[in-house]
Amino acid sequence: MAEAVARKRARGGGGAARRAERTAVSIETAKYIERNIPLYEILTDEALETIETNAEIILEEIGVNFVENPGALERWRAAGAEVTGERVRIPRGLARELCKTAPASFTQHARNPERSVEIGGKTLVCAPVYGPPFVRDTEGGRRYATLEDFKKFVKLGYMSKWLHHSGGTVCEPTDVPVNKRHLDMLLAHMTYSDKPFMGSVTDPSRAQDCVEMCEILFGKDFVQDNTVMTSLINVNSPLTFDEVMMGALEVYAANNQACIISPFIVGGAMAPVSVTGTLTQVLAEVMAGIAYSQLIRPGAPVIFGAFVTSIDMNSGAPTFGTPEASQILYGAGQLARRMGLPFRSGGGLCGSKLPDAQAAYETAHTHNAALLGGVNFMLHSCGWLEGGLVASFEKFVMDADQLGVLHKMAAGVTADEEAQAMDAIREVGPGGHYLGCAHTQAHFKSAFWKTDLFDYKPFETWDEEGARDTQTLAARRVEKMVSDYQQPALDPAILGALNDYVARKKAETPDSFM
Amino acid sequence: MAEAVARKRARGGGGAARRAERTAVSIETAKYIERNIPLYEILTDEALETIETNAEIILEEIGVNFVENPGALERWRAAGAEVTGERVRIPRGLARELCKTAPASFTQHARNPERSVEIGGKTLVCAPVYGPPFVRDTEGGRRYATLEDFKKFVKLGYMSKWLHHSGGTVCEPTDVPVNKRHLDMLLAHMTYSDKPFMGSVTDPSRAQDCVEMCEILFGKDFVQDNTVMTSLINVNSPLTFDEVMMGALEVYAANNQACIISPFIVGGAMAPVSVTGTLTQVLAEVMAGIAYSQLIRPGAPVIFGAFVTSIDMNSGAPTFGTPEASQILYGAGQLARRMGLPFRSGGGLCGSKLPDAQAAYETAHTHNAALLGGVNFMLHSCGWLEGGLVASFEKFVMDADQLGVLHKMAAGVTADEEAQAMDAIREVGPGGHYLGCAHTQAHFKSAFWKTDLFDYKPFETWDEEGARDTQTLAARRVEKMVSDYQQPALDPAILGALNDYVARKKAETPDSFM
Repeated sequence: MAEAVARKRARGGGGAARRAERTAVSIETAKYIERNIPLYEILTDEALETIETNAEIILEEIGVNFVENPGALERWRAAGAEVTGERVRIPRGLARELCKTAPASFTQHARNPERSVEIGGKTLVCAPVYGPPFVRDTEGGRRYATLEDFKKFVKLGYMSKWLHHSGGTVCEPTDVPVNKRHLDMLLAHMTYSDKPFMGSVTDPSRAQDCVEMCEILFGKDFVQDNTVMTSLINVNSPLTFDEVMMGALEVYAANNQACIISPFIVGGAMAPVSVTGTLTQVLAEVMAGIAYSQLIRPGAPVIFGAFVTSIDMNSGAPTFGTPEASQILYGAGQLARRMGLPFRSGGGLCGSKLPDAQAAYETAHTHNAALLGGVNFMLHSCGWLEGGLVASFEKFVMDADQLGVLHKMAAGVTADEEAQAMDAIREVGPGGHYLGCAHTQAHFKSAFWKTDLFDYKPFETWDEEGARDTQTLAARRVEKMVSDYQQPALDPAILGALNDYVARKKAETPDSFM
Repeated sequence: MAEAVARKRARGGGGAARRAERTAVSIETAKYIERNIPLYEILTDEALETIETNAEIILEEIGVNFVENPGALERWRAAGAEVTGERVRIPRGLARELCKTAPASFTQHARNPERSVEIGGKTLVCAPVYGPPFVRDTEGGRRYATLEDFKKFVKLGYMSKWLHHSGGTVCEPTDVPVNKRHLDMLLAHMTYSDKPFMGSVTDPSRAQDCVEMCEILFGKDFVQDNTVMTSLINVNSPLTFDEVMMGALEVYAANNQACIISPFIVGGAMAPVSVTGTLTQVLAEVMAGIAYSQLIRPGAPVIFGAFVTSIDMNSGAPTFGTPEASQILYGAGQLARRMGLPFRSGGGLCGSKLPDAQAAYETAHTHNAALLGGVNFMLHSCGWLEGGLVASFEKFVMDADQLGVLHKMAAGVTADEEAQAMDAIREVGPGGHYLGCAHTQAHFKSAFWKTDLFDYKPFETWDEEGARDTQTLAARRVEKMVSDYQQPALDPAILGALNDYVARKKAETPDSFM
């Protein structure tokens, strides 16, 4: 579909006409998923109540640490918590009560209103991989990521039909000083895509820069009244909230921007080895974090996050797409829904070094659990490789294609008269076939989801064409998407102001790789 | 684990001692899955009732064809159906009533009683791929399957911890005449494995041979009173029951052997393009088939089968692991449970030509749907490639490893005091880690499922060891399993009698490749 659009553009007239057409026409992106299917609930109500009771005991008796953050301690004290040193003990019921001002659902606006997303309730918004210092592709192998790589991922994300969100640190542009990366990354999201994006969390001042860049892009008033970023605030599990992440949270919440409060847990290391124990700690951490966001600004949008995986007890390596991770995802989703909060988990998670069968089995397990487990915001939904150390170009397009499966699954099953197809069954009768019947003719175009990547050809054709595996097909697709890419239009005045802002910020700060 | 057992055997004494040890020790096989988790139900009660009503209309008004089978027509007429030519119209409610004598669950006995399986209720029994004329591996590429390939698959199945069943036509031994293959296949299942197996359905006389071989293996009386085979009876959709399959069904049902009554449907070709329409036809076909089995012998064990996939409307190629196939699986499972019958569907289905990422994504979708959709007997659970045209040695061990994921998922989540892990959370506290705590030490061995195949190594180690992908690791594992294989002991008198039976049958029949 995107190809057809690109071809149409290429036929357009020159100059002003082409610019006008570019403004009008856009690469196709599916609307975020709205589930028309039931969710899967693995835990009994009794188990959920046990976990909730125990989480309150953790908050009251053990407490959580807010590290190097006197302001946070003061806020907690004022709210009624018992503060000793950096330890905050939260009386039973207080955190849950504070969480009640957080909205059940919110809109994250994109600069193209058609790409704005609703996060919460029945929705599932898909965003790409976040955080890898390395990239990999067939041609160049595994290497440190650069800003060029980053831009290429943003372009691929823009061109990916089933991807709703441009993400955040799709890979780390390691060739840019650490204290300036956020400027280049945000500028790329804002200019190479028109999908919604995430802000920086590596320092409160960088979060502030992101807010200011959004004020240029969306207008200052718009940003104060509306959510235009959803940023990832990790809890330093177990039970620790560090000053960098909390500082970023404070900036975003104060500006009404959304935060995912997300324990980052390798089970057996940062949480107990048991699913129930891990869920208990996750709930305690999320409640403390979200309660704190509401102390900053009641009503600030937040997401109940759970990034939990298991560990290979022989080597200590984190493992992905495992059954325990799926169980935790399902359980965390139930806990989030009982709090009436949007839920973040899942992704295209895998431990494999290559976009091979292991990567795909593990990814599919996590994709499926995310769909049926009620995830509203799926970070890492495409491109994740090697336990998150690597962003893979080929896996990006492989996973992004698979997100189409989730869209079709989520649409559910229609049982109206047309779907019952009794006329077709009568028409064909015993021993006939349906290929030419009226019902098939009327519905075949939309009846079955179709990949844009996988091989469905007869063996002989496939063999003659080079017997290509999925990775090889994906490499070709990456190339094609990048070559078809056309930048979405942006008001030149805004573009100029953004470039000026980034140039000024870069000039006034010495480089730092810390 | 299997390796440890094999090594232990290799250390044993000579002659009689070794034979005794072989009888006592066996390669480890997990017990069939008993789900301790809820099922996923995609259809509303209202939709299910609509489908059930429409299926009765199909049976009553359109009817089904029993082709070249006067005995079947006579049985139907006697049971109260309206028979015109080969068309059988079944009055509303009659088929469902007849199905009521079929058991909700049955035991299929293996010659090793520890390997017997229960099919129905909460169980999931995994059996390998069935039917491919070709095999593939990295070394030899794609080629016609031989009896040697068949035997190798039976050995791999015997050595696969998470595989409960030896299957049937794991691949077609194309170097053996068609009319003698069943003898060699059954002999291989009986002698190279001690897991349960399937009988031949390609001709009623061959089904009879299978019964007679089972009488040699298990004893004549035992076979009459117990189920020792589960065989695959495909419906020739739409709405047609051919004489070969029905002839085999008649032999098996009369002998109290289990049959899977399974419409084989490529949606849009053999059934309507809509999920609801397809489910309606599936239900009508299964009800007619199972009702017929109960006319042969009330109480004969049967399985509600649904092998349904979608089609690529551009090329006409069947496609696998698609969202529509998952929806149909979930819906068919609900229909089967409402009839109180065991359910067969799912598998490691895929359309890919290679055991690559496409194969794994598609397989994982189907595996997951089978687990959550309530499948009791999962044929094709490992080894399926290229739309079922190819049995892949590497994919066999890849999928068989993944069946372990389903076992762990199915075990569910424990929420007792030990699993709550509150002592561990208190012990570790904010900022600590769980690797050394008492709870972790007590549980780490069983806490997380672990692959026997995938790569969890650090990047550097993996790279030094040759940067192997899943297929390469799988090829190595196939080799190792075959080299570790040790044949399970069998009473020499029985072995002799089986060999004699096969030799006699082969000698008295001229070769035929039809």
